[in-house]
Amino acid sequence: MDILIHNTSKFMKYSSKLLEEAVNAFGNLPGVGKKSALRMVLHLIQDKNLKSEKIVKALNELQAGLKKCQVCCNYSDEDICNICSDPHRKKDLVCVVESIRDVMAIEETQQYSGLYHVLGGVISPLEGIGPEDLNIDQLCERVRKKQIEELIMAISPSIEGETTIFYVSKKLEDMNVNISTIARGVSFGGELEYADEFTLGKSIMSRIPYSQSMNG
Amino acid sequence: MDILIHNTSKFMKYSSKLLEEAVNAFGNLPGVGKKSALRMVLHLIQDKNLKSEKIVKALNELQAGLKKCQVCCNYSDEDICNICSDPHRKKDLVCVVESIRDVMAIEETQQYSGLYHVLGGVISPLEGIGPEDLNIDQLCERVRKKQIEELIMAISPSIEGETTIFYVSKKLEDMNVNISTIARGVSFGGELEYADEFTLGKSIMSRIPYSQSMNG
Repeated sequence: MDILIHNTSKFMKYSSKLLEEAVNAFGNLPGVGKKSALRMVLHLIQDKNLKSEKIVKALNELQAGLKKCQVCCNYSDEDICNICSDPHRKKDLVCVVESIRDVMAIEETQQYSGLYHVLGGVISPLEGIGPEDLNIDQLCERVRKKQIEELIMAISPSIEGETTIFYVSKKLEDMNVNISTIARGVSFGGELEYADEFTLGKSIMSRIPYSQSMNG
Repeated sequence: MDILIHNTSKFMKYSSKLLEEAVNAFGNLPGVGKKSALRMVLHLIQDKNLKSEKIVKALNELQAGLKKCQVCCNYSDEDICNICSDPHRKKDLVCVVESIRDVMAIEETQQYSGLYHVLGGVISPLEGIGPEDLNIDQLCERVRKKQIEELIMAISPSIEGETTIFYVSKKLEDMNVNISTIARGVSFGGELEYADEFTLGKSIMSRIPYSQSMNG
């Protein structure tokens, strides 16, 4: 029984070009490698619940129907999103975030009843993202036209994030609006020894009186 | 500054129904949770390289054009796949595997020059998969009609896999074909102490003479 070593000059991997193209299309998604993409595509081929059609339909509808809220720039199905149009929310408090994911994270806390403004990213010269690529002009316009008392900057504390906060605060310095940032420190339930040095250092620098922490 | 706790009766999570549907469609894929699905969908929305169109196009084409090879039941763009139609391959040697992924894994070794037969799974009463759901009849037909000398059963050594091998061998016992299974043992480069007991035990039971191992 001699199984000859079979050297094809062009190394065949996929038995189907269509399959290969589908795997490449899924392999382009964030966090998906070639093996996961193949698993997904094979799953979709073998599936009897029409998951493949559901994906195609959802993507087509998304492309046709997704809008940006004209007030807060969040993704929405209407011209004004359901957060901005909710009459129970405080209209004079706006939380400025990078992306819709931050909106969803804050909404899940169920602790915030103001509105949002989605910047769509942070200023990052290295990645070629300038202030004009973000929804900063819309924010300034909003502060100018509507009665907004406070902007809470819930932006990640990176160099790019700090730059963005600084840029926005400079742009708004003539206007009558308070700008705050979210509190940073060791997280609840987090053990001191596992906190990174920077967070731990900052949390000692910005310590608060015990009586105040009891009320918060 | 009092931020009231805002209790919406219906807990809103997505600002867009279309977005939610797309996330649900992607969240159905194997190994993808809601958070990864949201990340994928947001990536597709923000993407300028038309990745979303590529996925839609690839899935549509896959649905319209993907065939099963009439000989080996592997996925193919033609009626006969490029492995079965390759004139350089040994036609009398067939490796029986569960899925196209096993074909790709064996092809990557570049050590096998025979043909394949893809069963499409293993017999699993618990999951409701019987012999009639697999490509076993096609295999028997193939052995009956074509001159096949040997079937190599490259099936996973689970209870279901062993059942499948037993079922196939029973079906083919009247026919003039040799049935073998792939060798199992401690993998090359694997350290003995980390091999599982079952594999290690089996590899001692099925030891081979040293002179033979030198030739293999």
